Amino acid sequence: MPRTDFGQMNCAIAQALELIGEGWSILIIREAFYGTRRFGDFEARLGIARNILSTRLNKLTAGGILRRVPGQGGSKYQEYELTDMGQALGPALLAIGLWGSKWIAGEGKSAEEMLNIVRQERALRAGVQPSAAALSRKRRPA
Amino acid sequence: MPRTDFGQMNCAIAQALELIGEGWSILIIREAFYGTRRFGDFEARLGIARNILSTRLNKLTAGGILRRVPGQGGSKYQEYELTDMGQALGPALLAIGLWGSKWIAGEGKSAEEMLNIVRQERALRAGVQPSAAALSRKRRPA
Repeated sequence: MPRTDFGQMNCAIAQALELIGEGWSILIIREAFYGTRRFGDFEARLGIARNILSTRLNKLTAGGILRRVPGQGGSKYQEYELTDMGQALGPALLAIGLWGSKWIAGEGKSAEEMLNIVRQERALRAGVQPSAAALSRKRRPA
Repeated sequence: MPRTDFGQMNCAIAQALELIGEGWSILIIREAFYGTRRFGDFEARLGIARNILSTRLNKLTAGGILRRVPGQGGSKYQEYELTDMGQALGPALLAIGLWGSKWIAGEGKSAEEMLNIVRQERALRAGVQPSAAALSRKRRPA
């Protein structure tokens, strides 16, 4: 059964969902907010299959949320970073995360606490550069 | 291929997506914010297949976002309404809608304009009670 094209519906929410509503897409965007840039790091940190990751990155890039840039430090691999359009998703991700924290996880984290998590995750990825495999293990539930 | 269970991932955004991230779910919630309560009205206004609508309504009800209540005016049919947990999704839906309005539809609607749309849609559904079929035609793109 083909997926319904929500982008054709006359509604800003529906049009946004067409671009970011598929499984994994928002988690890939979240990882980009955390500072992840390389295909292999997205793969290891999310535990996502390579073919799905490739499809989602292509769609997010074509949709203007991510852009491909030359690898840092002379790497031969392209990297991905958020565009202004992608950065503008921050408030929506924060609102979704606050709702999930209160009503699903039962933690009731404040916006400040959520933003501190983003800062910690960014520092983790920018800092000691733990191996992708170690990060992936750490991030899976026990 | 089975759908990945994002609810198992240690992240409030992932847990929220497990409940509301499937196609149609957010649009059903949006319709509930507009005041739609009956199965047949969700069906006609969204143009959604009955079996998918039934599955999504069951999941949203089991997840605590909607609840079933006796039909208004002595109707023999049950109706659906947002719980407190569902109502709490308002800010997240607004943030997604504002982003879509600016970056996809290119309209750049303000929060006040978006909330006025909600008020207008609510008045439309609560007021003259146009037939569901007429609403459905009206809401499809030309």
